[in-house]
Amino acid sequence: AAGGLTVCLVRRSVDPNELQPLVDEIVANGGKAVPFGGFDATKEDDVKKLVERVENEVGPISCCVYNIGAQVGNRPFLKISARLFELCWRMGSMGAFLVAKEVSKRMIDRGDGGTIIFTGATAGFRGNSGQAGHAMAMAGRRAMAQSMFHELGPKGIHVAHVLIDAMIVSPDTAGKFWDKLFKDDSSRSSISYKDFVAKRTATESIVLPSGIAESYWHLYQQPRSSWTFEMDLRPWTDKAWFHA
Amino acid sequence: AAGGLTVCLVRRSVDPNELQPLVDEIVANGGKAVPFGGFDATKEDDVKKLVERVENEVGPISCCVYNIGAQVGNRPFLKISARLFELCWRMGSMGAFLVAKEVSKRMIDRGDGGTIIFTGATAGFRGNSGQAGHAMAMAGRRAMAQSMFHELGPKGIHVAHVLIDAMIVSPDTAGKFWDKLFKDDSSRSSISYKDFVAKRTATESIVLPSGIAESYWHLYQQPRSSWTFEMDLRPWTDKAWFHA
Amino acid sequence: AAGGLTVCLVRRSVDPNELQPLVDEIVANGGKAVPFGGFDATKEDDVKKLVERVENEVGPISCCVYNIGAQVGNRPFLKISARLFELCWRMGSMGAFLVAKEVSKRMIDRGDGGTIIFTGATAGFRGNSGQAGHAMAMAGRRAMAQSMFHELGPKGIHVAHVLIDAMIVSPDTAGKFWDKLFKDDSSRSSISYKDFVAKRTATESIVLPSGIAESYWHLYQQPRSSWTFEMDLRPWTDKAWFHA
Amino acid sequence: AAGGLTVCLVRRSVDPNELQPLVDEIVANGGKAVPFGGFDATKEDDVKKLVERVENEVGPISCCVYNIGAQVGNRPFLKISARLFELCWRMGSMGAFLVAKEVSKRMIDRGDGGTIIFTGATAGFRGNSGQAGHAMAMAGRRAMAQSMFHELGPKGIHVAHVLIDAMIVSPDTAGKFWDKLFKDDSSRSSISYKDFVAKRTATESIVLPSGIAESYWHLYQQPRSSWTFEMDLRPWTDKAWFHA
Repeated sequence: AAGGLTVCLVRRSVDPNELQPLVDEIVANGGKAVPFGGFDATKEDDVKKLVERVENEVGPISCCVYNIGAQVGNRPFLKISARLFELCWRMGSMGAFLVAKEVSKRMIDRGDGGTIIFTGATAGFRGNSGQAGHAMAMAGRRAMAQSMFHELGPKGIHVAHVLIDAMIVSPDTAGKFWDKLFKDDSSRSSISYKDFVAKRTATESIVLPSGIAESYWHLYQQPRSSWTFEMDLRPWTDKAWFHA
Repeated sequence: AAGGLTVCLVRRSVDPNELQPLVDEIVANGGKAVPFGGFDATKEDDVKKLVERVENEVGPISCCVYNIGAQVGNRPFLKISARLFELCWRMGSMGAFLVAKEVSKRMIDRGDGGTIIFTGATAGFRGNSGQAGHAMAMAGRRAMAQSMFHELGPKGIHVAHVLIDAMIVSPDTAGKFWDKLFKDDSSRSSISYKDFVAKRTATESIVLPSGIAESYWHLYQQPRSSWTFEMDLRPWTDKAWFHA
Repeated sequence: AAGGLTVCLVRRSVDPNELQPLVDEIVANGGKAVPFGGFDATKEDDVKKLVERVENEVGPISCCVYNIGAQVGNRPFLKISARLFELCWRMGSMGAFLVAKEVSKRMIDRGDGGTIIFTGATAGFRGNSGQAGHAMAMAGRRAMAQSMFHELGPKGIHVAHVLIDAMIVSPDTAGKFWDKLFKDDSSRSSISYKDFVAKRTATESIVLPSGIAESYWHLYQQPRSSWTFEMDLRPWTDKAWFHA
Repeated sequence: AAGGLTVCLVRRSVDPNELQPLVDEIVANGGKAVPFGGFDATKEDDVKKLVERVENEVGPISCCVYNIGAQVGNRPFLKISARLFELCWRMGSMGAFLVAKEVSKRMIDRGDGGTIIFTGATAGFRGNSGQAGHAMAMAGRRAMAQSMFHELGPKGIHVAHVLIDAMIVSPDTAGKFWDKLFKDDSSRSSISYKDFVAKRTATESIVLPSGIAESYWHLYQQPRSSWTFEMDLRPWTDKAWFHA
């Protein structure tokens, strides 16, 4: 939004109260944002309708970010049901496929390029304990993104995959981590989630959405002569996933 | 079979003529083989019934090989339907999950170990042009296998992933390759598929099922003190997938 | 230079005519640049003297880029002498080590951070035919950079490795490529190196130093909460190294 | 030795007492072994003389294993001297190059194939903290092996790289690990190195040279139609290097 784009915020829930605070924040900072509630990225019809509406109501999509993860919590392999395994895939792989296909088709037809960014997870690089479903879905997404880069690049579409190899300030990642960290701590009440995040933010030892946004903006701004397919992000305090 | 195991051959088709020739060949060589036709590895019920039948009729499974691929032919990204994308996943990832879960559960319950081998493809290592569905499914399978290795190893189950990074003597791989190689050749009739394979076999420039079997047997024989998770196979004449 | 840094240009040759044109160009564009000729990055004494001089004459180094490659041309494995193998390593690994150590030591002592960027090559990701020396040296450099990221990150030093997975407009890469491309072409004179580069530049199908600089600048600007260790760069027309 | 080859044992030290016990053990088990003391694999002359002597005194080399590591103990990056960095490389990369070149040249000249196996380390796959020199050398060795596989495969030479991703029963690896494990343990004397290894061996939670030998033998036996370039080895109790 700070760069001048109109940001379209999409969520599965139809509750307008969920997206409105973020829309308000963006507008208060001089940007433009439009909320789109009630769209399920794992359903082909929803994706088609969403892209149609965005392009009709806001304008041609020049940059698309697929953020939905497939983290369903650690589960022992034998405790993963076929249903849950499929859910991981629908969120991590299928939704990414449906959105990327619908958006890239229109970008190619227009012929003036475009950028599609997939947010990746550590699980897309190795299958860890308790992560069979998550890793399957995220590794699948990454492999699909590689195919897209090969095919769509020469058509002017910049496909990129960004590994966020750390905790992000968001209930979905930092919240779960905090929950786990203090699970067995009787003094759990001594540090609230809010304080936990505030402390990490002060020491820059947690990934901030603003930092991610800067790198995504850089990818969007790259000239066609030097495109990045993949980059990783983590705080200065963290080891990379491949480190012991 | 040559090592003394009873080989259970499984196929989706119910036609007994499809598996019988291989059963006969194994028996003629002094081995034991039992055909199981009519089982679809992508269906949870089929998998449960199959494993139940094999263990009841033949005996406890000590080694399980999941071979089913997700190669649906090269397709431009925009020409892949959601249905085909899902089919790739069902064959490449979901079926592997269902079979591995059902078999490993029983192996763990028995407490005397076991080996589960996933046949991997080059597409599990990188997403190439025209391979978005195939690569998604095979990379997902590989990541799932990594999770399994981590979790099931300490329970005595040896999970391995073998990359066959080349053409195999089989209608599904060499057949397709031959078809493509001579597609635009007016003199196509000059070399039949049979001759093509014979020539390659004579020069050892094609992967033979017997060679794969030797490496799978090696994995099955490895002592618990030195297990392999991953190995690759290709003929001496071939570059590796990561070579230009 | 466009971002306000004083650029120190270093070259082994002492001939001032080699660096002066670039210094002049930077100055003409309103930037600051200082040439340092006569330093061999593979010699510990030279590196120490260089860093000493730069810090004394220009100021504390906040960003260091190690560009020197180890490309000695394709050589059959059996034709690589021990001397050439060592030369690759001295340029690709040892020089990178010496420079990074000398610079990071001072950055850590000052305690206000810093950025060290290694320019990587495709050979750092896989050893290709004819590349045993080059690949050894560049893969070694990359592994060393990974160690540094792990150790120096928590000390405030941002270590990054950037894969330039394509031809760059420079006699060292595009020049060699052009030479090879038209080697057996009797009409070679029909396209000069200059025209070749101009044509590629017009279609953005070659990496421009300006594009690399933008990504390096982005790395230098990243907040400590989201650092990138690795990213790749190539033109929109090129396949990635892992693509067939 | 159990497979019928005459094993040539090489060591830098000239002390015959170092190799004799192993020679005696092999002979006692019905095998053949010849000790070669006093050869430094990092010196080109030594390597040439050694290969010459082995081929003259024992016979043509059909399988060569390069085992020498570059593990010099964990060192903070800033504490690694240029001399130590070079030592890592000489043992990890240069020695491997010299031996492989001298042996493969003779194998190619004879025209009847051969196998060259490089023992790899986890450090060849990622640079960890304190491992800048070790990782540089082992990643360089691996990249060189990839180049060799590409070039020498079609000449009938099978080049393979085996990752031993765990502790081996040997003073060099298990000894160091034991030393570290009980460093701060006042009751250190309560478990001797011998007992430590015996306990691990009993539970198969340490890599035994015999297990490695079986996999190397498998590689040596692979038909040319299905060669492995890379495989990993670790005990059933261990995570892989890429696991958290």
